[in-house]
Amino acid sequence: MMKYRLMAPGPTPVPEDVLTEMAKPIWHHRTPAFEKVMAEVQTDLKWLYQTKNDVLLLSSSGTGAMEASLINTCSPGDTILVVDGGKFGERFAKIGKAFGVNVDTLKVTWGQAVAVSAIDEKLKQKDYRAVCVQASETSTGVEHPIKEIAALVKNYPSTIAIVDAITALGVINIPTDEWGIDILICGSQKALMLPPGLATLSVSDKAWLLADKSTCPKFYLNLKTERKNIAANTTAWTPPVSLIQGLRLVLQNMRKEGLEAMFKRHATMAASIRNAAKAIGLKLYAPEAPSTSVSAIYAPDGIDSGKIVKNLREKFNMTIANGQDDAKGKIFRIGHLGYYDMLDMVAVWSAIEKSLADLGYKFEIGKGVAEIIKAL
Amino acid sequence: MMKYRLMAPGPTPVPEDVLTEMAKPIWHHRTPAFEKVMAEVQTDLKWLYQTKNDVLLLSSSGTGAMEASLINTCSPGDTILVVDGGKFGERFAKIGKAFGVNVDTLKVTWGQAVAVSAIDEKLKQKDYRAVCVQASETSTGVEHPIKEIAALVKNYPSTIAIVDAITALGVINIPTDEWGIDILICGSQKALMLPPGLATLSVSDKAWLLADKSTCPKFYLNLKTERKNIAANTTAWTPPVSLIQGLRLVLQNMRKEGLEAMFKRHATMAASIRNAAKAIGLKLYAPEAPSTSVSAIYAPDGIDSGKIVKNLREKFNMTIANGQDDAKGKIFRIGHLGYYDMLDMVAVWSAIEKSLADLGYKFEIGKGVAEIIKAL
Repeated sequence: MMKYRLMAPGPTPVPEDVLTEMAKPIWHHRTPAFEKVMAEVQTDLKWLYQTKNDVLLLSSSGTGAMEASLINTCSPGDTILVVDGGKFGERFAKIGKAFGVNVDTLKVTWGQAVAVSAIDEKLKQKDYRAVCVQASETSTGVEHPIKEIAALVKNYPSTIAIVDAITALGVINIPTDEWGIDILICGSQKALMLPPGLATLSVSDKAWLLADKSTCPKFYLNLKTERKNIAANTTAWTPPVSLIQGLRLVLQNMRKEGLEAMFKRHATMAASIRNAAKAIGLKLYAPEAPSTSVSAIYAPDGIDSGKIVKNLREKFNMTIANGQDDAKGKIFRIGHLGYYDMLDMVAVWSAIEKSLADLGYKFEIGKGVAEIIKAL
Repeated sequence: MMKYRLMAPGPTPVPEDVLTEMAKPIWHHRTPAFEKVMAEVQTDLKWLYQTKNDVLLLSSSGTGAMEASLINTCSPGDTILVVDGGKFGERFAKIGKAFGVNVDTLKVTWGQAVAVSAIDEKLKQKDYRAVCVQASETSTGVEHPIKEIAALVKNYPSTIAIVDAITALGVINIPTDEWGIDILICGSQKALMLPPGLATLSVSDKAWLLADKSTCPKFYLNLKTERKNIAANTTAWTPPVSLIQGLRLVLQNMRKEGLEAMFKRHATMAASIRNAAKAIGLKLYAPEAPSTSVSAIYAPDGIDSGKIVKNLREKFNMTIANGQDDAKGKIFRIGHLGYYDMLDMVAVWSAIEKSLADLGYKFEIGKGVAEIIKAL
């Protein structure tokens, strides 16, 4: 018997009480009872987002919401500035191009955060419709300086800040309104601790003004249609009712934990994993701006990181992630966002130490785990 | 104590074993274990669809798949022929227009099926890229003659038949390949007996040829991207893993019941409801081509159908559907697709008889239910 342990940066484990909540008989969405659920979820999402704006719900993966954020605010021929320091930054660029939007890409070396000054320069040169950036770039384990980027964008009346917080909302403090983030995107299968299939996004007044002018074709992902519906506690199309039912409970549980405690728990887990890695001589892939959601760590010299991933799967029934593209085989990534606590960090790092030892890496066994225990 | 009974045409009840299957701990989708699930689901979906073509999976509602069917095969300036005999026919037209596709609408009186001869005439007049039609139009309770329509479309090399079978697949016999249906769309929350959030669609070789020429902008709903991924037993974007896990069990259960038995069960339920209605003097909204998935029935003269819906909700904790648009207040709709048996029909009709009596309709109580009992 070896329990399955999901330690990748999403999908993440769903709490037991949420699994059973979603296993209740299905609701019809056009009923007063479900409208009440929608209203509660809306109130609590605004709390989580730290926003007064509507938080729209889409039946899609996070990518659907990324597409929605662009096609509802841009028009063909507009130009957007995309921070591309990983797979998800790259995705914003691909979406823009697919819809005839010009894309200026600010290439950032994988493992590094974008320089705020580089954004500043770009904004001075051209009229951008949007600046698109990840709060946490999952492929590289980097946090970008979204507070500073949003502050710059505020100075341009027809430029909005679109932040992909799919692996960041509920993990680090992102006061949407205070920082002036126009569109903040999240997905259910990350810190929201739900199965994938529901995306959420907040939309500012500034973004709605752009929406009035946007000519990109859209129907399923038309946010203005969703805005009308959310006002009546419903959605334009049949929503994923079981996920929304689960989300209500997740948000209730989050309110009990509190934002500060939630951010602190995540910060402690992330720091302990980084300290554990360093304690046994491993190097971080993103040492300067490491993500609080996912730790990207170099495999020791001469060891393919894919072998570590495979070893954990086969010996410990555990899923962690390999690197992607150029980082494949070089790094491994551990997710610690959502339904995790410090003893989960002990478990994953124990498995990693054992695997590294089996793969021939020389180090003092237990030295990494000791760092996590000290932080308990 | 009054059990909740969901008798609307979708979402439909989820079987107990499927609810608990989906309540199991969440999987990661990029794992050999989940790829095996995807492969099994693909095999069984081909069986259900009666097709050799790939059946693609989208994280969206059925509307997302309707949009995907058009934007992947058409280009701005192309013309499509849309059978519009209800809310869902209308939706195809709206999607086409949103993407710059010209739409010729074949208006059909609500409650009636489209005349095949009308399609024949249209096809002779113009080069259509697609003919779009509902197998079962949920808003009116009508079945359109999709076999005959697909047979006509076959004669035109660059015209495809797009069939929305969201409330028909698994209910009535639709041999996709034999009838030559190019794109057949379904959604999880109907006869697939799952929560909403997963859409499926099969795509023929003829449709893929159009996909090579299609210039409508697309990214999230790009079917060519999905085609590449399904070949590797995965999806382009994070899939709704819990729904797919549930779908595997649903399809296994369906194979045990068998297609013939499944179609017969639905036909018997639908006929019994129609007979029950007629037995107490009610008129069918779609007497000539009634849907096997949903029965649309006129409320008695002088009784607002909304009152029947409300009465069932308040007295019996039961959800049925009102009419929409012009039919609102005139008809009520009972769903009988998916996880239902004949004793469910007895229950819903008993509640309807009691409500009608309470609302002042004069008839012999029990006479409708007797028709259902006779068919047990």
